[in-house]
Amino acid sequence: MSTIPGFWAVVPAGGAGTRLWPLSRAAHPKFLLDLTGSGRTLLQATVERLEPLTGDRVVVVTGAPHADAVRAQLPALAGDQVLAEPSPRDSMAAIGLAAAVIERQDPQAVIGSFAADHVIPDTTAFESVIREAAEVAREGHLVTIGIEPTSPATGFGYIRAGEALAGFATALRAVEFVEKPDAVRAAQYVASGEFRWNAGMFVVKAATLLDLLAQWHPELAAGVRAIAASPERLDELWPALTRIAIDHAVAEPAADAGHVVVVPAPFSWDDVGDFASLAELLPPVEGEPGLRVLGSVDDVTTIEASGVVAAAGGRRVAVVGLEDVVVIDTPDAVLVTTRSRAQDVKAVVDALKAQGRTDLT
Amino acid sequence: MSTIPGFWAVVPAGGAGTRLWPLSRAAHPKFLLDLTGSGRTLLQATVERLEPLTGDRVVVVTGAPHADAVRAQLPALAGDQVLAEPSPRDSMAAIGLAAAVIERQDPQAVIGSFAADHVIPDTTAFESVIREAAEVAREGHLVTIGIEPTSPATGFGYIRAGEALAGFATALRAVEFVEKPDAVRAAQYVASGEFRWNAGMFVVKAATLLDLLAQWHPELAAGVRAIAASPERLDELWPALTRIAIDHAVAEPAADAGHVVVVPAPFSWDDVGDFASLAELLPPVEGEPGLRVLGSVDDVTTIEASGVVAAAGGRRVAVVGLEDVVVIDTPDAVLVTTRSRAQDVKAVVDALKAQGRTDLT
Repeated sequence: MSTIPGFWAVVPAGGAGTRLWPLSRAAHPKFLLDLTGSGRTLLQATVERLEPLTGDRVVVVTGAPHADAVRAQLPALAGDQVLAEPSPRDSMAAIGLAAAVIERQDPQAVIGSFAADHVIPDTTAFESVIREAAEVAREGHLVTIGIEPTSPATGFGYIRAGEALAGFATALRAVEFVEKPDAVRAAQYVASGEFRWNAGMFVVKAATLLDLLAQWHPELAAGVRAIAASPERLDELWPALTRIAIDHAVAEPAADAGHVVVVPAPFSWDDVGDFASLAELLPPVEGEPGLRVLGSVDDVTTIEASGVVAAAGGRRVAVVGLEDVVVIDTPDAVLVTTRSRAQDVKAVVDALKAQGRTDLT
Repeated sequence: MSTIPGFWAVVPAGGAGTRLWPLSRAAHPKFLLDLTGSGRTLLQATVERLEPLTGDRVVVVTGAPHADAVRAQLPALAGDQVLAEPSPRDSMAAIGLAAAVIERQDPQAVIGSFAADHVIPDTTAFESVIREAAEVAREGHLVTIGIEPTSPATGFGYIRAGEALAGFATALRAVEFVEKPDAVRAAQYVASGEFRWNAGMFVVKAATLLDLLAQWHPELAAGVRAIAASPERLDELWPALTRIAIDHAVAEPAADAGHVVVVPAPFSWDDVGDFASLAELLPPVEGEPGLRVLGSVDDVTTIEASGVVAAAGGRRVAVVGLEDVVVIDTPDAVLVTTRSRAQDVKAVVDALKAQGRTDLT
């Protein structure tokens, strides 16, 4: 299969991955790490997954502090393919700027936005879905990829899909985006069969995205187009851009106006949100079916223990008699918790910040 | 109170403390460590506890690899007060050699044998018991200190006491020593009120001990007396000494022959056998009643966690959502277990030895 003509990937590379502390830190966040033991970082794996669809048409948008690390991890990218945000302005400004830059190079370009820190093992299914999404997007729709829910998760927003879109294999009209639900509503959503997880993957013509943005946030659309036209004005214009997520800025109002289409995704998808998620992505250890190890299995000694161990501190990690434990060893910090408390790791980072220990966060 | 005239302390400093891995290692075992956060090692605390009774009459017996460390920790001791065993020959040879050395200096000497790695917080009660024991020993008895059991422990031997010894405040005749019991028998022992823990503390005239030894192991008594007479023959004579524990060599047969007296000990005593024991010896952390920390509390962050944390690796240790956990952080190894599995830490050391990783044991 060849790449999709005129299709560009936009890869927002941001987010601290606080729940993956102490592996993920402000200075070397989740997307810069090899969290699956694949030999590639999440960012590298994301770009590699897109390459069959985009070739070298990839733009990464990241915070200025991480731009050098991103360039080092993706040496094939040209200088203007890594956009460095002078300060955090949320996802709409990041993706909007990339769209505006791409629009100037190719006014008919279709872009797909894919976060740098998500894991999608089934690349074949992924490619098939994105190819259909790109076709739909070419018709002027804003396409979102709807992940088949595997559990009534409360950590994601959902998309409600309606009738089929004529002329396409699987695409459905999107009825609405809904915010992260409580457990009862999440269970209802999953049971209904109408709802899919919103993984934040959008496929849309760059011009369509910016024109939709211009309807609801004209100053933001004008701002990113002005920067794309005059890159030297980035530092001047960027600080004034509205801080807003792409979902709120465009996807939700566009869905209400009937402009959004869902392409259902049959592939498994993981945002590696915490160590419980991470455990699922690591291969089992031979002879230790309940154990997952990130790093060298030779550095880990377990006696009647299960869970996930990261041996990233160059030291021996020994666990005796604990089920579903999480032990994350790094050179300057060690975390011990359980899979069920994985979400609460954030509280450690909050406590360290409160103590002024930003050297550890 | 003055010291006890003619009373010498013998301090066997041995044992690997395998269940306290990774704090305790073959190269720096338990007795050389400050495990209670007191600012003194267990060896130093042992000698300090004895000083009001013995003054400078202390002899430490340790393995040759640890002799320099012992001397460094106890700089007040003269060269001949630290006896270095060329190879491990169990407790009878160690204590017997010390007894023989002391006997040559003072044929009427009473010695007390006190392991270097036990903790006895109530020094006043300890002194009172040992003063009575020394008086009894002067009459020619082998005196053992019987610890009041606080639980039906299966990890210690027990001593069964009989009738009172006339002329002394608390001393009782010893009926028998019994080996480590199973849980059912241990409960019976404790319920009976007749049994006390054998903490391995013996008080006896040096000459009495060696004469008793000569009855059952004449070659061993002759061997240690020959070394004491000609210290330059240590390396020549030591390897031939019988490997046997003092309990089996002398205490048990002497009890059967009616020569043993128990002085009951009302003080609490702990052999710091594992991290569950250690937790009991550490002070609670302010605001965290279920938490015990060895090392700097400032290096530990807990969120809804209890148990014992040793921050001995110079790193941040964070624990989230685990009860009665044990986290021991050191520069080259970290252990995670629970108080209830504290005894099984030995299995980690066994596994490491099986892998040839003696650098870690």
